[in-house]
Amino acid sequence: MPFVRISLREGKQPTYLKAVSEAVHRAMVETINVPADDRFQVVTEHPAGGLVYDPGYLGVRRSDDLLVVQITLNQGRTLEQKKALYARIAQLLSEVAKVRPEDVLISLVEVPKENWSFGRGEASYVK
Amino acid sequence: MPFVRISLREGKQPTYLKAVSEAVHRAMVETINVPADDRFQVVTEHPAGGLVYDPGYLGVRRSDDLLVVQITLNQGRTLEQKKALYARIAQLLSEVAKVRPEDVLISLVEVPKENWSFGRGEASYVK
Amino acid sequence: MPFVRISLREGKQPTYLKAVSEAVHRAMVETINVPADDRFQVVTEHPAGGLVYDPGYLGVRRSDDLLVVQITLNQGRTLEQKKALYARIAQLLSEVAKVRPEDVLISLVEVPKENWSFGRGEASYVK
Repeated sequence: MPFVRISLREGKQPTYLKAVSEAVHRAMVETINVPADDRFQVVTEHPAGGLVYDPGYLGVRRSDDLLVVQITLNQGRTLEQKKALYARIAQLLSEVAKVRPEDVLISLVEVPKENWSFGRGEASYVK
Repeated sequence: MPFVRISLREGKQPTYLKAVSEAVHRAMVETINVPADDRFQVVTEHPAGGLVYDPGYLGVRRSDDLLVVQITLNQGRTLEQKKALYARIAQLLSEVAKVRPEDVLISLVEVPKENWSFGRGEASYVK
Repeated sequence: MPFVRISLREGKQPTYLKAVSEAVHRAMVETINVPADDRFQVVTEHPAGGLVYDPGYLGVRRSDDLLVVQITLNQGRTLEQKKALYARIAQLLSEVAKVRPEDVLISLVEVPKENWSFGRGEASYVK
């Protein structure tokens, strides 16, 4: 049920993009009860002018390797789950794709369960 | 007032993209009281690595023709309206663009009416 | 904390894109208390078929120079603040980039403060 948009600067190798995609998904599976096969993502690459960021907001030193991760998901996760999710995304991205934790920006958009259809025109989470 | 993002794999013909755009809009007009001229969409095509999906989540057999439809709209639609919307989008996409209903993924993001400006810097739905 | 997606028709000069980006950000700083260095945006250009709009919805005369601005931000802004934001975005875009006010479409998606991580895997706005 999460739908994930990942935005980054263009020029990375396909293996890097794949590692990023997998790290973000695995972190959701491990920390907020997302099924392993509930994986839907759009990954977009942008030219320099297309990905605008501040290099120091809140004292975090960002670089052109910034990853913007926006996750639409069902409401109901606790603060503790969200904190675990952020930490695990940053940790796995560092481990599997050498992304600097400073370069990981995450935002969550929560929606009710009835707001999803995963195919066949059905409201997938409504009985 | 809905703003629609449609994401799909690159390589389709312009006629296909146009048919998809029209089908999604028409379904909203027919099922959730969207005015016929209230049509605003961004349609993006992605390389293989840019559109990541699970081919079997919830028992639905998806293909590379997957369409991800994310609709930002005013809150207040009933569950019945949402179900009708999902069903009609899948049905019209099948009829006019031969999209398999299994390949239609929809998510809704609801916002209050005061969250829109449709031009001239005005809050369009606030008196 | 706002994350901004700006979508427009392809073919503009980099100086135009930069002016648009700056105008939208400055309007947020001036009207809704966004810190000057809290600037994160994705700006995407689209071919004709990729940016679909109605040229007359609500009596507003739009052109191919349409800008779609979608802002994810913390909840809590008043209606007056939102109205000031819409007006100032349109005004600054007109002043610095000669964008017609009719060509500015804005939507806001509000989220709670705990839904952001601005780096290091931390929930940036939670103590």
